[in-house]
Amino acid sequence: MALDADATLGDAGEFGLIAELVEIFEGDDHVLVGPGDDAAVLRIKHGHVVVSTDLMVEGRHFRRDWASAADVGHRAAAQNLSDINAMGGTARHLTIGLAAPADLPVAWALDFARGFAEECASLGATVVGGDVTRADEIVIAVTVLGQCFQSPVLRSGARPGDVLALTGRQGWAAGGLAVLGRGFRSPRVLVEAYRRPEPPYAAGKQAAEAGATALIDVSDGLLAEAGHLAEASGVAIDVRTGAFEVPEPLQAVGAALGADPLQFILGGGDDHALLATFPDLASVPSGWHVVGEVAEGEGVTVDGGAYEGPTGWTHF
Amino acid sequence: MALDADATLGDAGEFGLIAELVEIFEGDDHVLVGPGDDAAVLRIKHGHVVVSTDLMVEGRHFRRDWASAADVGHRAAAQNLSDINAMGGTARHLTIGLAAPADLPVAWALDFARGFAEECASLGATVVGGDVTRADEIVIAVTVLGQCFQSPVLRSGARPGDVLALTGRQGWAAGGLAVLGRGFRSPRVLVEAYRRPEPPYAAGKQAAEAGATALIDVSDGLLAEAGHLAEASGVAIDVRTGAFEVPEPLQAVGAALGADPLQFILGGGDDHALLATFPDLASVPSGWHVVGEVAEGEGVTVDGGAYEGPTGWTHF
Repeated sequence: MALDADATLGDAGEFGLIAELVEIFEGDDHVLVGPGDDAAVLRIKHGHVVVSTDLMVEGRHFRRDWASAADVGHRAAAQNLSDINAMGGTARHLTIGLAAPADLPVAWALDFARGFAEECASLGATVVGGDVTRADEIVIAVTVLGQCFQSPVLRSGARPGDVLALTGRQGWAAGGLAVLGRGFRSPRVLVEAYRRPEPPYAAGKQAAEAGATALIDVSDGLLAEAGHLAEASGVAIDVRTGAFEVPEPLQAVGAALGADPLQFILGGGDDHALLATFPDLASVPSGWHVVGEVAEGEGVTVDGGAYEGPTGWTHF
Repeated sequence: MALDADATLGDAGEFGLIAELVEIFEGDDHVLVGPGDDAAVLRIKHGHVVVSTDLMVEGRHFRRDWASAADVGHRAAAQNLSDINAMGGTARHLTIGLAAPADLPVAWALDFARGFAEECASLGATVVGGDVTRADEIVIAVTVLGQCFQSPVLRSGARPGDVLALTGRQGWAAGGLAVLGRGFRSPRVLVEAYRRPEPPYAAGKQAAEAGATALIDVSDGLLAEAGHLAEASGVAIDVRTGAFEVPEPLQAVGAALGADPLQFILGGGDDHALLATFPDLASVPSGWHVVGEVAEGEGVTVDGGAYEGPTGWTHF
């Protein structure tokens, strides 16, 4: 995509900007995977170092009246740990940058840090550095380093004939966000799913060992991520809605808000479920659910046709 | 330092907050150096991975009317690359997070990225990942990974009897910042030193190989960094002003602004000079200048007495 010289970030969109940035940064022999996948992979003897970075901005990625500081900490850690999971790696070490107004209570920052450390500890990962500075709004910048002993599973390996499979809760966090946005605090299980996602941390390595051909975590929305897989792999992906059992709390929210609860599942991110392709049904591991298939072509369809609802989240 | 439960970040100050955070984060057997030094060092077979992270906020760490986007990119890279230098390591890979308003011109972001990549390329380091998102103000979050094949040189190794030595320009960037703050654009050499610092990238490894006992880069101000060394090592440091030759442009700025030019040298950061201690005069390598000495005791003195001027920069 060519951009005008005076285009703004709003004009370019997140992916337009990234596409431009990737052109500027050159890799080298030590970069096995550079910008464009869930994480970068660096050549290190006896296993690779895997590194990924994410930003969270108050009011956009979290609200202090919707989640406690510890919740925000848990979520910030989870979304980064999930990026290593999505490579088939094991998260080990993290850094945190915290930019915040001078009138932010120290207690908030400490509770945030405690929640963050707690989520990391559940995986045996630790925070090894950081930076704090003053800013008008809270911006949290996390970088996570992991190790990967087998080949990392990229977005680009899906082949026609593969099956598409999902593991982990999907749509719950989006349902929780929807009720919070209407001023409600229940169903509590969905609100908690938004506040403290529970990514399937063991499933990335499991998928890699089972021979997954492509792997991604669902942070921008299920159909959006399927689109990333399809584009990177040069294939078409069809998602079958009959594969999803809509859990009762999502049905209740759909009924209360007058929305199709399937929208939360197809368009929702934030649960950090894992989406993978496997060469055949027999190779899909325990705990994974087949939700679609891979064919020649391009783009994402739902039940064989175009999908008109929201497919995910955009940053600009 | 004990903080009240309702204390703000402004109350705690940067170092107070960090001290609290460090208490929360536990290391593990793989963390050779965790929070509190210039960078974290992680145990990796055949050399260690060194990682450090930094934030820059518009209006606080840079101004778009004082420096071009490429300048800001150069500076953001330099200050991070310098942190690896300050461990005696070699910078290899970086990630960038960019939070910015939607009306930021794409050209600014791209020029920033080009400047950043250019500074990295001068060392053979490369950008391997990143994140972009929307925010009210520009926040740049950089993480740098490096390798270290010998033992890293920490802040805590200075011993009584050691000599204190400096390499790289010192005070130039502070002089440039001072003239920009008064609305001037010259002396140009100082303004350029602020816009594009030239850290002595080869000197960190040089100092490590020469047997430096402690090492730090000067980003918060020379006396402030000497204070960090003294505190971490449990020693007293005396800085001798007679050791500094005040360069002509700094003399000119001092005369124009009615300030003692030595203030720029003693209080200035941003040049990312390196400050180290060595066991004796004979071990101080070529290119380094002896600027003081280490004794039993605590704190930093200047020419044997207390210093009343500004000693550095605080973030809250």
